[in-house]
Amino acid sequence: MNGRLDVLGLGPGPREWMTIEAEAILARATDLVGYGPYIDRLPRRDGQTRHASDNRDEIARSRLALSLAAEGRDVVVVSGGDPGVFAMAAAIFEAVETGEPDWRALDIAVHPGVSAALAAAARLGAPLGHDFCIISLSDNLKPWSVIERRLRAAAEADFVMAFYNPASKARPQRIHDAFALLRQVKSGDTPVGFARAVGRPDEKLTLTTLAQADLSLVDMSTLVLVGSSETRGIDRADGGRWIYTPRSYGAGR
Amino acid sequence: MNGRLDVLGLGPGPREWMTIEAEAILARATDLVGYGPYIDRLPRRDGQTRHASDNRDEIARSRLALSLAAEGRDVVVVSGGDPGVFAMAAAIFEAVETGEPDWRALDIAVHPGVSAALAAAARLGAPLGHDFCIISLSDNLKPWSVIERRLRAAAEADFVMAFYNPASKARPQRIHDAFALLRQVKSGDTPVGFARAVGRPDEKLTLTTLAQADLSLVDMSTLVLVGSSETRGIDRADGGRWIYTPRSYGAGR
Repeated sequence: MNGRLDVLGLGPGPREWMTIEAEAILARATDLVGYGPYIDRLPRRDGQTRHASDNRDEIARSRLALSLAAEGRDVVVVSGGDPGVFAMAAAIFEAVETGEPDWRALDIAVHPGVSAALAAAARLGAPLGHDFCIISLSDNLKPWSVIERRLRAAAEADFVMAFYNPASKARPQRIHDAFALLRQVKSGDTPVGFARAVGRPDEKLTLTTLAQADLSLVDMSTLVLVGSSETRGIDRADGGRWIYTPRSYGAGR
Repeated sequence: MNGRLDVLGLGPGPREWMTIEAEAILARATDLVGYGPYIDRLPRRDGQTRHASDNRDEIARSRLALSLAAEGRDVVVVSGGDPGVFAMAAAIFEAVETGEPDWRALDIAVHPGVSAALAAAARLGAPLGHDFCIISLSDNLKPWSVIERRLRAAAEADFVMAFYNPASKARPQRIHDAFALLRQVKSGDTPVGFARAVGRPDEKLTLTTLAQADLSLVDMSTLVLVGSSETRGIDRADGGRWIYTPRSYGAGR
């Protein structure tokens, strides 16, 4: 069994946010496996088979990829962003753990990429310049009580926070619930940023505060950043604004 | 004033972990500003001036970069990893906030990169597959009491954790203090990973547990990952092991 399986991320937006490594691995693969919209971003190549799935069943997709690798194919599993952050790498290992014993002999490698929180932060300034938490607000795969506990802990310990999956058509209420909780613990003037479709042509950046945030702007393509007590804004000469979190904590600013 | 300033990250290890964008921006800069070891990684180019600093004074380095941009130069500030995570982007904005008013008119852009935690996680499997916290254990710029509060909060809310700056020659004790605290709150069999010099020729990966971790292996080049209660190992056929955190929480495994 000489097949291999590489799990990589395309970054959150343009090709330019992919790593040099990811581009090279994509070029040599015999099979690409991934969610359709990610596969669609990639150039077609002769001799390369594209397995674009039209649904969200990551375990079925992982089992397909592992089966192809076990047949000796050179398989690349494609994620958005970084494959290790709320993406395909964990699904692959879940499928390995519960799947065919010989999948444990496969040459599986995960390759890091740019996760959406890092790109959103870069666009807004440097809000992740100090300790932070990354939380998915989807309660598809975990109880909402766990999310509440984590939000409260992160707020009380004054972490900067980045939220993935903040709202969906099926669960539009979750971002409202999260902000209601945070508003009990954190100051209303805490800087908040929304980065929608970051790096894409329809990118939309919004800087606001915890008290004033218009949550109707938040959809599944939005990365939500909530500052710590230290996160602050700087007015730019052009009327815009950056936000950043200083490297020092509690320096009496 | 037509100068511009781009802040970018080289990724944690090899050139291949840089983004395509970062490589293009580096090629067109007139001036490179950064800590010496990062500048040393970059090829020399005609017409490009290298300002390698031999110390850790990020604010002085930021002021130099902003001054050069204000003179109309095309300046790139180079960080390791991602520039927004415990790196130069926050220092640049701190220097803007406290510096010359006309620096606020500069065209400043931050460009995301691969942060060390993402690369370390990729090498070990997918430990960051669920909610996580990123914490710097350096008490150079914040009180240790803040770090303790965050460690406790992250442990009690069962986040996966990644630690930057876990130990230094001046402060070798900090990782010991952190683990002593975590051992009070979390199970001793919690998976722990050390990724030293990740992506470099002298990379060393260690998988252990919270109870058994040998902390003498941890130095400033080590990224420390501590699992949640859900993080688990899979034995590979070759005797190695992956760790990952499932996407579902509390599914009764």
